[in-house]
Parts: sequence; C-alpha cells; structure tokens
Amino acid sequence: MSGMASRRVEKSDLEAFIVRVFQACGVPEDDAFEVAQLMAEADLIGADAHGVFRLPQYVKRIEAGGINTHPAISVESERAAMAVLDGDNALGHLVMSRAAELAVEKAATSGVAWVGAHHSNHAGPASLYARMPLSQDMIGLYVAVGSANHLPPWGGIDMLLSTNPIAVAIPSGQNSPIVLDMATTVAAYGKVKTMAQRGETMPEGWMIDAMGNPLTDPKRAGEGFLLPIGGPKGYGLALIFGLLAGTLNGAAFGKNVVDFNADSKTVTNTGHFVIALDIAAFTDVETFKRDVDDIWAQMKGSAKLPGFFEIRLPGERLAKTMAENSANGIPIPAELGTQLDDLAASLDVARL
Amino acid sequence: MSGMASRRVEKSDLEAFIVRVFQACGVPEDDAFEVAQLMAEADLIGADAHGVFRLPQYVKRIEAGGINTHPAISVESERAAMAVLDGDNALGHLVMSRAAELAVEKAATSGVAWVGAHHSNHAGPASLYARMPLSQDMIGLYVAVGSANHLPPWGGIDMLLSTNPIAVAIPSGQNSPIVLDMATTVAAYGKVKTMAQRGETMPEGWMIDAMGNPLTDPKRAGEGFLLPIGGPKGYGLALIFGLLAGTLNGAAFGKNVVDFNADSKTVTNTGHFVIALDIAAFTDVETFKRDVDDIWAQMKGSAKLPGFFEIRLPGERLAKTMAENSANGIPIPAELGTQLDDLAASLDVARL
Repeated sequence: MSGMASRRVEKSDLEAFIVRVFQACGVPEDDAFEVAQLMAEADLIGADAHGVFRLPQYVKRIEAGGINTHPAISVESERAAMAVLDGDNALGHLVMSRAAELAVEKAATSGVAWVGAHHSNHAGPASLYARMPLSQDMIGLYVAVGSANHLPPWGGIDMLLSTNPIAVAIPSGQNSPIVLDMATTVAAYGKVKTMAQRGETMPEGWMIDAMGNPLTDPKRAGEGFLLPIGGPKGYGLALIFGLLAGTLNGAAFGKNVVDFNADSKTVTNTGHFVIALDIAAFTDVETFKRDVDDIWAQMKGSAKLPGFFEIRLPGERLAKTMAENSANGIPIPAELGTQLDDLAASLDVARL
Repeated sequence: MSGMASRRVEKSDLEAFIVRVFQACGVPEDDAFEVAQLMAEADLIGADAHGVFRLPQYVKRIEAGGINTHPAISVESERAAMAVLDGDNALGHLVMSRAAELAVEKAATSGVAWVGAHHSNHAGPASLYARMPLSQDMIGLYVAVGSANHLPPWGGIDMLLSTNPIAVAIPSGQNSPIVLDMATTVAAYGKVKTMAQRGETMPEGWMIDAMGNPLTDPKRAGEGFLLPIGGPKGYGLALIFGLLAGTLNGAAFGKNVVDFNADSKTVTNTGHFVIALDIAAFTDVETFKRDVDDIWAQMKGSAKLPGFFEIRLPGERLAKTMAENSANGIPIPAELGTQLDDLAASLDVARL
C-alpha cells in the first residue's frame, strides 16, 4: 500500500454507497442494487482491481452515454444447452448475472449449458460468474474479452488482444471451492492499474515496450504491452478465448475492442460466456466433493521446493480474504478513498 | 533429427502397418483400422510425439494385459447436452472418437454438448478430437488427464499432475482452421521423449530437478519435472483440467494416475472430455467464418517485434505440415524406423 493508510468499510456500507452513486446517475434502484452487490463482493473476495475501484470509470461512461441505464436484456437465440444474450449495452454485471442464471437453469435439465452475450460491458472479476453455479452444486466456467487490448499476437507489437481471462469454480467438501481466476497474461491489467495507483514497481516479465525491453513502471503502462503466459501458448489462449467469448457471440474482438480506459462513449459490445455443469449429471455429488477434497489434500501434502513453505490451491486465498474482509471490513486504500469522496461530491451523494 | 536420416512413408502404408501390428496383438480389424487412421493422422499433422512413435508402447501394454482389446464402450450416464462414457479400458482412440461423435450428435440438437470418459487410455494428440467437430461446422474442445504425472503443484516436488493438455479447433473461411493444441507445461512430455530419442538438448525453462535447478538433458527427464506455463497459472490450469477431465468423469487424477511409460499392466483409467459447439446455434456460420478470417488477417498484419519475421496463427503449422506430409509422405526418423522394424519382427508381420 506504499505507506498510505487504508481504512476498512462494511460490505453493506460499500453496497449502499455504490447504490447511491448509481442512482444519482440514473440507474434504476433494483439494477443499482444488483450491480452494487457484485462490485462489493469483488472487493470482499480481494479482487480489488475489479471492485469499487472501477466505480469512477463506470460513472464516467454512464455520464458520457456509453452505457444504457435502462436496458432490455434479451435472449437472442437459444437451444436446450445454450443461449446468446443481447445485453443492450447494460452494465456488464447485469448481463452476466443473467447469463449465469440462465446457464444454471438450462444445465439443471441438459446437464451442461453455455450462455454467451454480446453488447455487454465490463462485469468485474471473472470469478464472480464462475462462482455463481456453485450454490446449485454445479461447476462454473467464465471467459471474457477484456475491456481493452494490452497484448499483441506473439512476435507482434500491435495490441490486438486483451488479457481475455478465464475463471473456473469447482466445489469441494470440507475445503473452500477451488476457484481459478486468471488472465492469459503474466499479470492482469487491473493489477498494473492498482500498482500505478499505489506507486509500486512491476517485476520484470509483466510488460515489455515496443522494442522488446522490460517495462517496470506501471505509470508507463500505456507505452508497452503485457506478456502472455508461456509465450505463444498464452497468445493462443487469448486468441481462442476471444473468438469464443467475442466473435462467436457477435461481440467485439481484435481491433474492434474499445479501450474503455480511454474512451467512455463508444459502445464497447463486450462479449463473455458462462458455462454451468450439473455435477449430478456426471456422478454422485457427495462422492465428487470427497474426491476434490482428496485432490486438495494431495496437493497440500506435497514435499516442497527449497524456498517454498506452503502449497496453495486456487481459490484458497480468495476464501481467506473473504473471511478476513467479512470479519474486519473491506480495505479501501487512501488514494481510492479520496477518489470515491470526489465522486460522491460531484454527484452530491453521501460519502462512503 | 541430430544427423540421422529419416525416410518418408505414405499415410496409407503407415496405416496398413499399424493395422498389421494391432491385428497381430489381437485387436479386431475394424478397431485396428480406426486407431491406425487416427495414429497416422497424428503423424500427418506433425504431432509426431503422439503418432506411430507410441505404437511399441501400446503393443507392450496390450501384451501385458493392460488394454482391453475387446471392449464394450458404453454410455454410462447422459442428458441432452452431456454424457459420460465407460471406455472399458479400450485403446483411447476408440473411446474418444466415440465421445467426439456423440458430442457432435448431441450438439446438433442442444447447441452445445460435453462428453467425458473414464477407463479410457492414451488417445494421441489432443487436436485429433478437437478437430473432429469441424466437418460439421462445429467448434471442438478437448481436455485430457495426461498419461503420466510430470508436474508437481506450484512450489512442490511431488509429481501429482500431468501436463493435462487442451485443444480447441475453430473453423475459418479462407484460411486453415485455428487449432490450438497445448500442454499446460512449457513443453509437453512427448516432446521431451522425442528429443531424448533424437539425442537433442532441451532449452532451460522446460524442466527443473528436485532442487530447483535447470534440467536440460532429456534422457535425465526421470530425475526432474516439467515447469507449468505462467508458474502458478499453469499449475492452476493443470489442476482444473484434471478435475474436469479426470475426477468429474470418475477417472484417475493425482496420485492415482498410472505412469504408462513405466507400467504397462495396471489399468490407467484415463479421463478426457470433448465439447462440441454448433456454430449455427449462435450465429450465421458463414458470417462467423468471415469474422474468423478477419481476425486471422488482423493478427498476420501486426507490426513485428525486432527479431520476428512472421506472426503465426495456432493451427497454421499443422495445416502446412499436413499438406507437406500428404504430398511427400510422413517422415519416419531412423531410430523410430529401427524400433518399428524390431516391433514388426517380434510380431512376425511385414515391415513398414
């Protein structure tokens, strides 16, 4: 946190603040509340580059007319195990929670369902939507076209790809769910933005400049681009995920992706998809959960490399952060707090 | 090829040879022919670590009783958009071509289908099964639990994970299909085996030993383990893919995975799954293909980093290799040729 104090706020207070802000921008109360819950949940689980941190940007886009505050989200095409939603340029959280809901509903019958969307917007952290099917003893997967291109094809310098993240959530028995939420780049761009705000320096290997030299100052992020995991493999994943989450849904991908950091007005036509798998269609749910626990224990029990003191499972830190923030409140770094106070003042609503 | 001559053979001759070998081991003619076609196709597309290279190992396993040559592959559970197959310990190619067929059939109605299998075996390169839905204007995805553990959890040294590969195939219009086929490790273990056979040295970053030091001699591969792409991210992907392809299907994952390089007798209970997406359920097929062509052109057209002379699309090299090998024959390196001759002699069948 680079020496700056951060305070902690209750999740309900954070939600109420986000609702106030959205309502002041003309978002209907129900929608404001739904988005606020998901944004606050993002902060609760430690996905702090995708929670209330994004609120000023969302407001800027709403005020510029770049988001439809009275959308009619609709099912454009559908079959037993799939659907494509037209998000009608709504806040992405509204579109993708609807998508996850529909995927769960369809998977309950078909066993598996895949619901995509176009004309959506930035929807927060990928894990939000992958985790939604968990409560129904389903496995969730989520993939999105990122909301700005920061990645060139392998060997190139034109930024035609985003970090196109994937999240997968799998329930366990005794342990927290296994939740993988990863960008196809070594670092997510949200992390770069958070580090810039905190005045931190990035490790080498996260970004390079157009000559191929390491770029470590996150404030200079605009001069370079992110590096994909595994070199050409991460490029391949970002490309495939973009085709599936973007092109297949009739959403933007490649040069059509609007940099929502730089442009608040142009319709983004963001694409994402959610898959739900009904575990009961495959096997006995309790047996499956016990088997996941067994795999968890195997990983935890591995002997360690010199210098490592713990084996972590994906989702373990999320669960710990969620428990800690539920008990102690959600940390709001000082610089973010100031931004949110300024936002409150500009909209004439009560501060957080 | 480390100075050793390689000769080229016709695909049909390679198939006929593989059929002879399998029939000599008691595999019924139809099954032998189906597997031979897929194995020869693996070589045709340049997946030479997963083609006829594996034949001696398959024969060893059949002779040891580790593969059922008269299997009754059956649908164990099914809903509109999914099924789980019991592979009855058949050759994996038979199980997974059946899985892909069923996924395509179900997706034609449901739009999307996910078919998993347990009690299967090594089935060759992942791309074989991801590419099967292409002929029906569908997108294919395939994930497998690898047939030996070469990867510890991140920070660990117990080899509890395999390279658990993923393949995705997406049709284009004017270009070859986009086909990503990648291990979740920096290098696939099959490549390590091929390099060992060719006497080559691995680059640093592919494997480390139990002290964390680089391991570059592929003949010493047994002393170390593969490194995941993106460090903890590749570990996370391997874990998630293992849970989905293995655990969810009731197949082996974690410490239950049998190292089929070292043990030819124990039933492997290999798990995999195939997903088919019917493009027509999402959008107009020709529009989609044109859009994929447009993305292809965008990537190709990117300005390049110093030192790069071409941007490649996943699947481009596959298509070129397939065209070259179709025209000129499939290369068989001298050392492999000798192994196959020995195999032919031991089974008293005509040489390749």
